[in-house]
Amino acid sequence: MDEVVGKIVDNKQIIFKGYIEGVPKESDMELRLGNKIKLEAPKGSAAFLVKNLYLSCDPYMRTRMRDFHASYIPPFLPASVVQGFGVFKVIDSDNPNLKPGDIVSGFTGWEEYSLLHDTEQLRKVEADNDIPLSYYIGLLGMPGFTAYAGFYEVCAPKRNERVFVSAASGAVGQLVGQLAKLHGCYVVGSAGSNQKVDLLKNKLGFDEAFNYKEEPDLDAALKKYFPEGIDIYFENVGGSMLDAVLLNMRIHGRIAVCGMVSQTGIGAPDQQGIRNLLSIVPKRVKMQGFLQSDYLHLFGRFVEEVGSLYKEGKITYLEDMNEGLESGPAAFAGLFTGKNVGKQVICVSRA
Amino acid sequence: MDEVVGKIVDNKQIIFKGYIEGVPKESDMELRLGNKIKLEAPKGSAAFLVKNLYLSCDPYMRTRMRDFHASYIPPFLPASVVQGFGVFKVIDSDNPNLKPGDIVSGFTGWEEYSLLHDTEQLRKVEADNDIPLSYYIGLLGMPGFTAYAGFYEVCAPKRNERVFVSAASGAVGQLVGQLAKLHGCYVVGSAGSNQKVDLLKNKLGFDEAFNYKEEPDLDAALKKYFPEGIDIYFENVGGSMLDAVLLNMRIHGRIAVCGMVSQTGIGAPDQQGIRNLLSIVPKRVKMQGFLQSDYLHLFGRFVEEVGSLYKEGKITYLEDMNEGLESGPAAFAGLFTGKNVGKQVICVSRA
Repeated sequence: MDEVVGKIVDNKQIIFKGYIEGVPKESDMELRLGNKIKLEAPKGSAAFLVKNLYLSCDPYMRTRMRDFHASYIPPFLPASVVQGFGVFKVIDSDNPNLKPGDIVSGFTGWEEYSLLHDTEQLRKVEADNDIPLSYYIGLLGMPGFTAYAGFYEVCAPKRNERVFVSAASGAVGQLVGQLAKLHGCYVVGSAGSNQKVDLLKNKLGFDEAFNYKEEPDLDAALKKYFPEGIDIYFENVGGSMLDAVLLNMRIHGRIAVCGMVSQTGIGAPDQQGIRNLLSIVPKRVKMQGFLQSDYLHLFGRFVEEVGSLYKEGKITYLEDMNEGLESGPAAFAGLFTGKNVGKQVICVSRA
Repeated sequence: MDEVVGKIVDNKQIIFKGYIEGVPKESDMELRLGNKIKLEAPKGSAAFLVKNLYLSCDPYMRTRMRDFHASYIPPFLPASVVQGFGVFKVIDSDNPNLKPGDIVSGFTGWEEYSLLHDTEQLRKVEADNDIPLSYYIGLLGMPGFTAYAGFYEVCAPKRNERVFVSAASGAVGQLVGQLAKLHGCYVVGSAGSNQKVDLLKNKLGFDEAFNYKEEPDLDAALKKYFPEGIDIYFENVGGSMLDAVLLNMRIHGRIAVCGMVSQTGIGAPDQQGIRNLLSIVPKRVKMQGFLQSDYLHLFGRFVEEVGSLYKEGKITYLEDMNEGLESGPAAFAGLFTGKNVGKQVICVSRA
C-alpha cells in the first residue's frame, strides 16, 4: 500500500452545488481542490478511512438533488460532497469488521479518500481475479440487483414469455434482457442510438432491438416486434414509451417499474401524462413499483448466481468507464442525455 | 304463471342505435315497439324462453358501444337489442338444466321476453324471501363480486389499513367500503353529491366521506382524511382523483383498478393523462387491473358470505330502481353523470 496511515494528504472532491429542477447538468457539481484529509480512523470512532476506487453514476441520485425530504432517501446537502455507491479500499480502520486492505462496496463520497461511519450498506468484496472490481457497483451491485429482483420477483417470468426492456443497454436493462434470454424468453430492447441497438443485438444477445429515436410511431414499432403483445415490460423510461407499451400488453401482463428517469423528470411530474392507463383493466395488467432494497434477503443468492453466470461466459456487462474523479460531473449528467453506453462508472483509482 | 307457453305476445325492446364516442347519452338507445315473440323454446334447440324481470345498468357496457373488437367483450351490434346482466324467469325450456318457473341471473336482452341460448354465465337463483331478486344483479351479482374479488384478492387487505374508495356509493364501491369496515379497516369514500356523502357516512358506515365536486384541491382533501396516507385505493374513476391518490399512497400500497369510467372515457384515452405515476416507485405501489371474471372459482363462497352478511343486517345495499323497460336509456346514461344513487337497476316486471 502506498498510503501511509496517519499521513495528511490532498483530497480532491466533487461538490453538489445546490438544488436543481429538471434535468441535471454538468455544472450542478464542481471539483473542489484544497481539502486535506488525515489517513486515519480515530480511535473509539468505529469509523474507517478508505481510498475510493470506483464511483457509480446512478439515475436515482437525481432524486437527491432536489429539496424534497419525503422520499425514501434524503437529499444531498448543498455545498457538500456528492454521495453514492462506490468500491473502495480500507486504509485504516477502527471498525472491528474491517481491516486495512479490505475491498468494500457501499455508500461513500465522491472524493479521493473518505472517512466513513455507516456500515449499513457495506459489503466486503471477496477477491476474485475473474471479476473486475468496478462490477461490484454494476453487474454485482445495486443496478444488477435491481435487474435480478425486478425480473424474477416482480415480473415472475415464465419460459417463452415476451419481454420488452426500455433503456435496454443501461446498467439495469442490459442484465434484465440477458436474464430473460437465459430464462427462455423472447426479448426486445429499446435504446437511443444505433450503436446501442447494435450492441443489444450482437453483444448482449437480445432477439431484437430498436432505436426509439428513429421510430415516429412507438405503438407501431411495438406491434412489429410483438405481434402477439408483451407479457413483461421492464420499465425504465416512462412517458410516451410507457403509453405505447400499455396499448400492447397481453392479458395478465406485468410491468415492473424501477424508474422512469431517462426521459421524464423525477420530482417534476410527467408533463405529458400517461393516457392509456385504462387498458390495464381489460388486460388485467399488474404495474408494480419496486426498489431493490426491499429484496436484500436475496442479495447473497444474486451475487452467487450472477457472478457464476458471468464467469461461465453466459452473461456480459457493458461499462462506460470515465477516468478520474474530475470526470464525475459530466459522467453523471451524461446519464440523462443517453451519452453513456452501459453502466456509467468513474474510476478514481485502480488500486 | 300468466304467460301461456306457445302464445305470441308483444315484446317491447331497447335498441342500441349505433357506435358512439365519448359519454353515452339517452338518445344512443331507443324503445322499439312492434316486435312479437312466441313464448316457446323450440324443440331440439337447447334454448329457453324467459321473461325479463330486472336489468342491470353497468359502466362496462359503454365498452360495447364502440366499434372495437379487441376487448375482452365484443361490441353491441347496431340496431340490435341491448344486452346485459339481468334476472329473469323461465317460461319454457328445451334446456335440461332449466324448467319453467326457475329464476335465473345471467346475460339477457333489454326486452320483455328473450329466447336465450348461452348458458355460460347463467346462475340459478335460489328462492330466498329475505333477499330481493334484483340483488342478484347487484349485491350478489357481478358488481358485488367485483367488490369482493377486488377487495380480498387484489387489495389483500390487513386489519387497520387505510382504505379509500372512489365512486363509493355506486354498485361496487358501496360494498367495498362495507367489506373494508367489517375487515377492521379505516374507510373513506368520495362521491359526487352531498346526498351520497350523507348516505356513505350515515347509512353505509364509512368512517368519512367527501363530495369531490366541492374539493378544489383533491390532494389536500386526501391529506386531510389520510394524514398518514392510503394503504388501499379501490379505483373506480381515474383522472385527477387517481393523480391525487398517487401522491398520497403509503409504502407498499395497493391500487385495484376495475374501471375508470365515471369521469374519463373508456375507449377514448384519458385526455389529461396521469402525471404522478412516478410515485409508485419510491412507495413501491402495486397497481392492478382486474376483471371479476378471473375469480369465478370464488363466486359460490362470495354469494354465501355476502348473502349471510346481508341477512344478518351487517351489510346494506342501495339500489336506484327505475320502473319499466322504457326507463332503460335514461337510466344507463345517468350512470355517467352520477345521477344514480346506488346500483342502477331497471325493473321490467316484478314477477
